[in-house]
Amino acid sequence: MRMESKKVMQQNESHEITKVALDAMGGDNAPAEIVKGAIDAVTGRRDIKVFLVGQKEIVEKELEQYTYPAEQIEIIHAEEVIETAEPPVNAIRKKKQSSIVLGMNMVKQKEADAFVSAGSSGAILVGGQVIVGRIKGIERPPLAPLIPTEKGVSLLIDCGANVDARPSHLVQFAKMGSIYMENVLGIKKPKVAIVNIGAEEEKGNALVKETFPLLKECTDINFVGSIESREIPHGEADVIVCEAFVGNVILKLYEGLSATLVSAIKTGMMSTIKSKIGAALALPALKSTLKAFDASQYGGAPLLGLNGLVVKTHGSAKAKEITNSIYQCVTFKEQDINGKIKKNIISSTEQEGM
Amino acid sequence: MRMESKKVMQQNESHEITKVALDAMGGDNAPAEIVKGAIDAVTGRRDIKVFLVGQKEIVEKELEQYTYPAEQIEIIHAEEVIETAEPPVNAIRKKKQSSIVLGMNMVKQKEADAFVSAGSSGAILVGGQVIVGRIKGIERPPLAPLIPTEKGVSLLIDCGANVDARPSHLVQFAKMGSIYMENVLGIKKPKVAIVNIGAEEEKGNALVKETFPLLKECTDINFVGSIESREIPHGEADVIVCEAFVGNVILKLYEGLSATLVSAIKTGMMSTIKSKIGAALALPALKSTLKAFDASQYGGAPLLGLNGLVVKTHGSAKAKEITNSIYQCVTFKEQDINGKIKKNIISSTEQEGM
Repeated sequence: MRMESKKVMQQNESHEITKVALDAMGGDNAPAEIVKGAIDAVTGRRDIKVFLVGQKEIVEKELEQYTYPAEQIEIIHAEEVIETAEPPVNAIRKKKQSSIVLGMNMVKQKEADAFVSAGSSGAILVGGQVIVGRIKGIERPPLAPLIPTEKGVSLLIDCGANVDARPSHLVQFAKMGSIYMENVLGIKKPKVAIVNIGAEEEKGNALVKETFPLLKECTDINFVGSIESREIPHGEADVIVCEAFVGNVILKLYEGLSATLVSAIKTGMMSTIKSKIGAALALPALKSTLKAFDASQYGGAPLLGLNGLVVKTHGSAKAKEITNSIYQCVTFKEQDINGKIKKNIISSTEQEGM
Repeated sequence: MRMESKKVMQQNESHEITKVALDAMGGDNAPAEIVKGAIDAVTGRRDIKVFLVGQKEIVEKELEQYTYPAEQIEIIHAEEVIETAEPPVNAIRKKKQSSIVLGMNMVKQKEADAFVSAGSSGAILVGGQVIVGRIKGIERPPLAPLIPTEKGVSLLIDCGANVDARPSHLVQFAKMGSIYMENVLGIKKPKVAIVNIGAEEEKGNALVKETFPLLKECTDINFVGSIESREIPHGEADVIVCEAFVGNVILKLYEGLSATLVSAIKTGMMSTIKSKIGAALALPALKSTLKAFDASQYGGAPLLGLNGLVVKTHGSAKAKEITNSIYQCVTFKEQDINGKIKKNIISSTEQEGM
C-alpha cells in the first residue's frame, strides 16, 4: 500500500495535489459523516486526494452510496480503532494498526501532507508528538482552534496540548499563531494578545508576568498586550495566546455557553403564542446571526509545529466540518506554513545567538 | 463618629439589625445608583442600617431627592476616593481617608457587619486582607460571585483574589463555598466540583491533579469530581472550585459572551422587516429568558474567610445590584456564615491533628 501511495504522490506533486489522510473511524458521527465530508471535499476540488483510513468493509459500504472521482479517494485499511476513553499514551503505543497511528505514519512517511481526525484528542496530541514529531526547535506543539467573534474569527493557541507550559513555549505559540493567521486566513499583521485578568502589564499570574516582556521584545509579531476574556468575543485580537488549561477552559465555555444561550432563546421564544408567531418571523434572520457564533463551522484545530499537519476536529464533527478541515489542509500546504515556521525558528535561534 | 456608631450598634443588636457600610463613591454609576440602591434597601426592609461612606456634600445632595427613614441611613464622610487604575497596595496604604479604607475599618471595628463596594477590585481585595483581616486558619480569602445557569446559580470560587493558589487553598475554597451555598442560598448538600479539562481524575494541570484527591477525602463537602467549563452553564455543580486566574477568565468570558450574543441576537432580529415584526412579538418572552443569564442581578461577590463580610459588586452596578448586595449581607449575618466557617476550620484542624 505504501509503495502504491508513494507512486501516487510522485505523480501528484507536479499538479500540487494535497494528500489528506482522514480518520474514517474517529468521532461521534463516524464513519457516515466523515465519509460524506470526504466525498464533498473531492467533488468540490480536483486538487485533493483523500485517504480514508479505517476498517475497509465499513468504509467501502459507506462509499457505495456515492458517485465520486475514484482517483481522489483511496481506502487505507486500519484493523483497530482507538476509543475516546483509552489512555492515550498506551493506545498510541499498542494499537499500531489503528486509524490514528496509521494515518499519522502516512504523514511521517510523507505519503500524506496532513492527517485529519475527529477521534480521541489525547491520542491525537500524543501521536502528533510521538509519531509525526516536532519541527526542530519547536519546544511544544500547541492545539489552535479558531473561535467565532463579532468581527470574524480568532485563533486560540494553546487550547489543550501543553498544560503548565513555560514562557518560552507561549512565545513560540504567539509566533506560530501569527504565521497561521497571516497566511491561512490572510490577516495582515495579525494582532497578538496574551490572556490576562487585567489590562495592565503588572497584572497576571507568574506565567503571564514572565511571558509578557518576552512577547513585547518580539519584533516578528504584532503584540498588542493583554486581553481579558470579556473582550475575546469582540474580536479585539487575532491570535490569543494562553496556557493550555486556560485555553481549554475558554474554548469549552465558549462552546457550552453559546449552545446553552441559543437553546434558552429558542425555548423562550416558544413560551407564548405571541412569541411563537414572532419566532416564526424572526428565526430565519436570527439563524444567520447564531450561525456566525457556531464554532463547528470553522473546520478543525491544527496541532502546529509538527513535521506535517495534524488537524483535530470536534468529536461531534459533521460532514461540513470535515470538508472544511480538508480544505484547510490545502491552504496550509499551499502557503507552506511549516516552511515559514521553520524559517522563523531559525531566525529566532540566530537572534538569540547574537 | 465611631463612638456614635458604636452606640447605635449596641442599640441595634437586640433587634438584629444588619449594619452595612456602603462605598458611595465606588463604581461607574456612583454616587447616584449607589445611593438609590441604599434607599431601596432601607425602604424595603426595616432591619437594615446603611452607612453611606463618601464625600459628605455629594452624598447629601443625592439623598435630598428621596424620602426615607432617617434612622436607617447615615453618612460617614470620606475625604478621598481610590480610583480603579491606582495600584491597590499603595492606595490602601496611603489613602487612609478613602471610602474603601474607612468602610473596611468600620467592619474591623465591628461598627458595621459588612462593607459593600463597586470600586477598585484590587483595592477591595488588598483592603479585605490587610484591614479586615482573615479568619484564623484561613490561608487565602477567595472572591466568590454567583453565576447564572440553566438551573439557577452556581458559586464560582475563587474568581480573582489569589492567583497561583496552592491545593490547600482550593480545599478551603470548596468548604467555604459549600457553607455559603447551603446557608445563604439554601441548597442542601451543594454539589462541589473542580474546574478541569476532562472528566477523568488523571486529567488536569499539576494544581488540579494535586487538589483532586484532597477534595475526595473531605467528608464535610459533597464533592462530585471534575467539571469541564462546557458544563458550567448547565448548572451541574453548585460550587465551582478553581484557581483565581482560571476563575477570572471564566467569569469575564461568561459576562462578555452573554452580552455579545444577546446584542448579536438583537441586531439579527432587526435585520429584515419580517424579523422586526417577529422581534416585536417575541421580545417580551425572550427578555425574561435573557434576564436569567444576566449576571448583574444576583448581587455582589463576597470575599469569604474574613473577620466580617466584604462584598464586591460589578463596577457597572446599578441600584438593583446594590440593594441585592445589601440584602445578601443580611442573610450572611443571619445565617452566621463566619461562625460556621470558623467551626469548620477548627474541626478540619482537629482532624489533621488526629
